Amino acid sequence: MARPIAILTDYGYSDAYAGILRGVILSRCPDARIIDLTHGVPPRDVLAGAMQLAAAIPYCPPDTIFLAVVDPGVGSERRPIAVRSTSRLFVGPDNGLLWPAAAAAQVPDVFHLNRPQYWLSPVSATFHGRDVFAPIAAMLALGREIEDFGRQVLDAQRLYLPKPAPHPDGILGEVLYVDQFGNAVTNLRPEDVGSPAEYAATFRVGGWDIPGPATHYGAAEEGQPVIVLGSMGYYEVAVNGGSAAAALQLARKSSVLTLTAS
Amino acid sequence: MARPIAILTDYGYSDAYAGILRGVILSRCPDARIIDLTHGVPPRDVLAGAMQLAAAIPYCPPDTIFLAVVDPGVGSERRPIAVRSTSRLFVGPDNGLLWPAAAAAQVPDVFHLNRPQYWLSPVSATFHGRDVFAPIAAMLALGREIEDFGRQVLDAQRLYLPKPAPHPDGILGEVLYVDQFGNAVTNLRPEDVGSPAEYAATFRVGGWDIPGPATHYGAAEEGQPVIVLGSMGYYEVAVNGGSAAAALQLARKSSVLTLTAS
Amino acid sequence: MARPIAILTDYGYSDAYAGILRGVILSRCPDARIIDLTHGVPPRDVLAGAMQLAAAIPYCPPDTIFLAVVDPGVGSERRPIAVRSTSRLFVGPDNGLLWPAAAAAQVPDVFHLNRPQYWLSPVSATFHGRDVFAPIAAMLALGREIEDFGRQVLDAQRLYLPKPAPHPDGILGEVLYVDQFGNAVTNLRPEDVGSPAEYAATFRVGGWDIPGPATHYGAAEEGQPVIVLGSMGYYEVAVNGGSAAAALQLARKSSVLTLTAS
Repeated sequence: MARPIAILTDYGYSDAYAGILRGVILSRCPDARIIDLTHGVPPRDVLAGAMQLAAAIPYCPPDTIFLAVVDPGVGSERRPIAVRSTSRLFVGPDNGLLWPAAAAAQVPDVFHLNRPQYWLSPVSATFHGRDVFAPIAAMLALGREIEDFGRQVLDAQRLYLPKPAPHPDGILGEVLYVDQFGNAVTNLRPEDVGSPAEYAATFRVGGWDIPGPATHYGAAEEGQPVIVLGSMGYYEVAVNGGSAAAALQLARKSSVLTLTAS
Repeated sequence: MARPIAILTDYGYSDAYAGILRGVILSRCPDARIIDLTHGVPPRDVLAGAMQLAAAIPYCPPDTIFLAVVDPGVGSERRPIAVRSTSRLFVGPDNGLLWPAAAAAQVPDVFHLNRPQYWLSPVSATFHGRDVFAPIAAMLALGREIEDFGRQVLDAQRLYLPKPAPHPDGILGEVLYVDQFGNAVTNLRPEDVGSPAEYAATFRVGGWDIPGPATHYGAAEEGQPVIVLGSMGYYEVAVNGGSAAAALQLARKSSVLTLTAS
Repeated sequence: MARPIAILTDYGYSDAYAGILRGVILSRCPDARIIDLTHGVPPRDVLAGAMQLAAAIPYCPPDTIFLAVVDPGVGSERRPIAVRSTSRLFVGPDNGLLWPAAAAAQVPDVFHLNRPQYWLSPVSATFHGRDVFAPIAAMLALGREIEDFGRQVLDAQRLYLPKPAPHPDGILGEVLYVDQFGNAVTNLRPEDVGSPAEYAATFRVGGWDIPGPATHYGAAEEGQPVIVLGSMGYYEVAVNGGSAAAALQLARKSSVLTLTAS
């Protein structure tokens, strides 16, 4: 059985771009098992893609090949890479997209994909997902070795999510991500500010002081804001039955200050 | 061969939530066959999800496991359930979402999923699709018995679609659902108001009196409204080549009155 | 192993329509391998669907069955057809949608699907994707012969993409398609106006005179327009890091004039 391939892109759903990746993969790996993580990453938003990829990997089979493409520099001198970290393999552009996921468990091995004989030919200037990354992912799924496709490099582009910082009144974090429900995922984790069981603080966000964390969305009245520990392991700002992003005017980089109980 | 798993959620396409369900399923059931029904149910809209689920089940293989998550009460005391009805199995929240689909053929057997040893650990407060429902669906697909995962209960939350009512001038129905083409699906069925072959009436809707039903969308002039028997078995209001919802200002609960021919 | 089935529709993602196609296919072909090309073709836009289908076929396995449904005439006298061209098979409405893809390599064999015993019963007036096309596609994937399902016809509806035309100042083309990044794909190909390596001209579009073609998006300054040879084999108008459609006010049929170097 071929190894599963999980795909994350910013190709959207109105064009056939994501479908073409599937076609290329099945052309090379006829019994591919594909996990579409999402193709709805905001266009060219490497940080959002990196964060979603990192959130998904613990829930995919350990032998998954991750094919991730958010690639504003396609066609430029940015390198195509494949990455090995524990049992997982990653394929995509060398622009930081793969880094948070691949570097979570260990320093990953990074390979510059520099052997065009394994790509589609000709290679377009605009669609390396189709011409470079998908063919390599398919061959990795078939069991080929990552060393076959490039040479190891040590200078991969790294990307780090912004970290919370000390603040005179507590700890200052920010919104990393707003999901489709309007929940605002912050960069504040239990290891930063305490676990839900032991912890009580006020979160100052969007002009509100919200006591938290609560055990679930419904702990607040309908339409009221609430802080919960979200599924990615970060505290998130939500509104019970509504959109926190809309109600509290939140977007990425909005500040979230946890006030230490005095 | 594992049983197929059909998934319906309101997780949308911009986040990796739906993809993570696939990852969890493949982690437990490596040769899973997954049918993504839709992840585009309007956020937290249990009725819309229930209706789409009920419309889809006759067209899926009879041994399908249905994993459905539209779950505004996630993390609260609302129960996770699994349901058996004829040969079909359903997994999701006990909020009515599964009821119209599961109760269509017989009174279903409902089980409260109360054995956390089969779930992912830890269980988040916000993503039971990932932590509770997907793992159970995967094990059911592998052939495990529903009785292994919980105890039978008799007080499941029921949900009924609104029924048409008698009216001095005919029969009064309403719009249940507007699809992406702008077609307005009503709650009027042939068994309520007569079959297309035998039936002729005027539908009063959005300020229009539309003779109906017609045999197909193109029976009206381009841009004109038309009543057809839709694919879900309900009469629907359409505009040939356009959006009835936009042209006639229709939304869910808009009234549709069938005038009896006099 | 069953032949793969690639699906392209305008069913969108908010309804379960596309998912129901999958259900029907798995009901008849339990080990189906499905390639969702896209379900995001603009509603009823046959030309956009035809173009995306044609762009995708070279990247799918050669034995793929293409199930394509953009079908504003559903339920009317327009015929359901299946088409054979080289090793590929196509199923869909006889409205031109399949033509550019099927006629690319040779004059295709077209069959009028006129044997309802192979369809679902009853057949709705509004959802032939579910009731007619998906069942036939599934049986073709199982290896049944196309001749089993209908009789050959010679008068299939043909569709041709608009061609560039001579112009006193050069060659006049137009925008065929705007993708989700806002890139405007033109109908100008290297065989029309010269290949990127040998060719230099100015593209007059949206009030701009853009020198081109460039080797990749990033060859222009951030926010500036650029002409590249796109992945479908057509020159496209892009903006580095942004949307050309928004910045240059482009839509389908916008004119693009290549000025011959003087």
